[in-house]
Amino acid sequence: MNPASVPEPSAELLSRAAAVRRSAMALGQLSDAARRAALGAMADALAADQQAILAANQADLDAAAAEGLAEALVARLKLDATKLSGAIEGVRQVAALADPIGVRQLHTELDAGLVLERVSVPLGVLGVIFEARPDAVMQIAALAIRSGNGALLKGGREAARSCAAIMAALKRGLAASSASADALELLTSREESLALLKLDGLVDLIIPRGSNALVRFIQDNTRIPVLGHADGICHLYIDAAADLGEALRVAIDSKTQYPAACNAIETLLLHQQIAGPFLGEAIPAFAAAGVELRGDAPSMALGVSHAASDDDWSSEYSDLILAVKVVEGVEEALEHIRRYGSRHTDAICTRDGAVADRFLAAVDSAGVYLNCSTRFADGFRYGFGAEVGISTQTLPPRGPVGLEGLVTYRYRLRGQGHIAADYASGTRQFSHRSLPL
Amino acid sequence: MNPASVPEPSAELLSRAAAVRRSAMALGQLSDAARRAALGAMADALAADQQAILAANQADLDAAAAEGLAEALVARLKLDATKLSGAIEGVRQVAALADPIGVRQLHTELDAGLVLERVSVPLGVLGVIFEARPDAVMQIAALAIRSGNGALLKGGREAARSCAAIMAALKRGLAASSASADALELLTSREESLALLKLDGLVDLIIPRGSNALVRFIQDNTRIPVLGHADGICHLYIDAAADLGEALRVAIDSKTQYPAACNAIETLLLHQQIAGPFLGEAIPAFAAAGVELRGDAPSMALGVSHAASDDDWSSEYSDLILAVKVVEGVEEALEHIRRYGSRHTDAICTRDGAVADRFLAAVDSAGVYLNCSTRFADGFRYGFGAEVGISTQTLPPRGPVGLEGLVTYRYRLRGQGHIAADYASGTRQFSHRSLPL
Repeated sequence: MNPASVPEPSAELLSRAAAVRRSAMALGQLSDAARRAALGAMADALAADQQAILAANQADLDAAAAEGLAEALVARLKLDATKLSGAIEGVRQVAALADPIGVRQLHTELDAGLVLERVSVPLGVLGVIFEARPDAVMQIAALAIRSGNGALLKGGREAARSCAAIMAALKRGLAASSASADALELLTSREESLALLKLDGLVDLIIPRGSNALVRFIQDNTRIPVLGHADGICHLYIDAAADLGEALRVAIDSKTQYPAACNAIETLLLHQQIAGPFLGEAIPAFAAAGVELRGDAPSMALGVSHAASDDDWSSEYSDLILAVKVVEGVEEALEHIRRYGSRHTDAICTRDGAVADRFLAAVDSAGVYLNCSTRFADGFRYGFGAEVGISTQTLPPRGPVGLEGLVTYRYRLRGQGHIAADYASGTRQFSHRSLPL
Repeated sequence: MNPASVPEPSAELLSRAAAVRRSAMALGQLSDAARRAALGAMADALAADQQAILAANQADLDAAAAEGLAEALVARLKLDATKLSGAIEGVRQVAALADPIGVRQLHTELDAGLVLERVSVPLGVLGVIFEARPDAVMQIAALAIRSGNGALLKGGREAARSCAAIMAALKRGLAASSASADALELLTSREESLALLKLDGLVDLIIPRGSNALVRFIQDNTRIPVLGHADGICHLYIDAAADLGEALRVAIDSKTQYPAACNAIETLLLHQQIAGPFLGEAIPAFAAAGVELRGDAPSMALGVSHAASDDDWSSEYSDLILAVKVVEGVEEALEHIRRYGSRHTDAICTRDGAVADRFLAAVDSAGVYLNCSTRFADGFRYGFGAEVGISTQTLPPRGPVGLEGLVTYRYRLRGQGHIAADYASGTRQFSHRSLPL
């Protein structure tokens, strides 16, 4: 994909996006109960259409088989009755989450009768581009409507029939509620998904759920803010003062519990004093778990059989491969993470409080962990109920992003004829008195 | 400026930016007191160098005179003893502001012995590009250091000598504190300021303080998040139920208190029922204040002498010109604002509570005001103590951005050997219990 290929939005897309925006504005005015009810209606409509959705998915699977689609993609595309029921239950769970909008974050009397408040409000319209997985349509639509946002969704071409069947049910559900069916739109062509990037003013946030290349392409071709992470190169540093049994358990879990996840570790950093005893137990344990270790020279001298090249330190394997490096101590570990890390999630195992504090303060990642698995970096595990994705950007929202990441805020100032000239001239003074939230 | 002209960073710039980043990381580890002391040392060094700074500024002014620089630019460039003392006092005021970092925003027990917290931390390194005004160097440097951030600053070419003298003092101040002088760097060439846009991974936020064209160019040519606003097209809607005397005072202040500011109004929307009586008083009042009114046909019929063209509704005059339009009521006013507004600050004058609530809920701008001047949209007036700028982006930070906009957060998770597999298998369950902040 090259930048020149990003087309201008067609008049038809502009008009659909404007309709989504208008519906989103109305949705944002609905009460908490009304938005909860809309999610209930969406879930009911999905449940009623279960057969049609599964049939559409089967048609997508048949087409995928005919095209010889890769097995991993087919697995993501497949939507059986259990998965679909789970996704519908997920919509109901999002309905039950606390309302992220209308929360007063700041309340200040600027002067007598002049009161400022900052209140959370919906972002407006989300643009979501994701790969094959049709269940993502239900999850993202639920999160969008719960937070008072409209959404333009573009699924993978492979899932076209599944997405269309799901969207038809979601829209029928919305139409049966006090929200408008126009708050959600499915984009179907590649041209539309590209033109989405040029809908500044109509779309407030782009959420790409796909490959690193996709995320970078989007970042390079839009002025709209992009929520996304490009890489997940996570580290585990095992300190001299670690409990070795605990450290090994954490290392195995961080690598193998779901190796394709972005919060799985790619590099293990070992303090030189414990590298020997640790690897003595770790080499057979990782071998038993099917993990290939790739080591630097010192760890090879301690028994690691494959050599790591310079590329290994910056590779996201997303597979049962783990790079291993021996370091002099925590400072060298920090330097390595600073250089090669992707500011996603990095962990230390140690019983030394001072070393732990140094690591927790100095690692500049969205998640910094002590004596536990990097696999906890997840919105559900954090207690957010659901997540839009994990952001490795520095600016908030950062890390696992739940409903809270889909809102912004607005300042409201109520006066009684107050004018700025009175303060500039010194006739009146600001009080800046905090009021209860 | 065209995209092709954005050069890759030179090795020298990369190495300086890396040094700033390293210093910023160390700065972020300093205590509140140490960062306050660093600002005190910066202010002391500026005070000691006052003569040198004023002399450098005079040299810039002489060069500007020789080049025939526009008067408005010369006014911004000029730094007399009073302005300089004020700026130094501003650095001390920023030192006195509450620490924005180390604030715990979330605290949850995920399970026994597994505790999550979210803590505010510095962004890292700011890239700041601003026009002539040399006093901005002092203000931005103070805000950056106070919030634990490093900064790469690029001032206007016209202010080169002034900026260099100020930066020399700031660095000497830093060197006399526990912070490193390398936390601040001045970029001097146009190539450097362009290459700054390509310092992904080394710079976390770009803050442009300049023209709309500059902001858009930057947004189009960087993957780094940009804090900025492109336009300030603010509206005041005068409802049928407004107190006309109060409304006129608010209108005059919103337009004339500082017409070049982005929070001054550009368009006045008048309810058809009060347009007649209001304009009867407003036309002479605005004329006395030197404001040219440009009206639609109905307001011209009521005495406005100049005609507004379609372009007027989307013009940021930054001058004593005000567009006037008669509307049927609040819904037409909302529709106009939705279409032409820049989501900066919009106000209503009314005594009707229901109309006020409708307006405050429906206008999708960073600031929505009732019965007061739009000129209050400002970090100092909001009680933030200082501001980096006003953001018209939808995502936070939005509106006037103070120290709070220069920090992000990090999740810290402390466990005792906890692994994700135990929760996936059902051996353990999450408690997700909120702990005190």
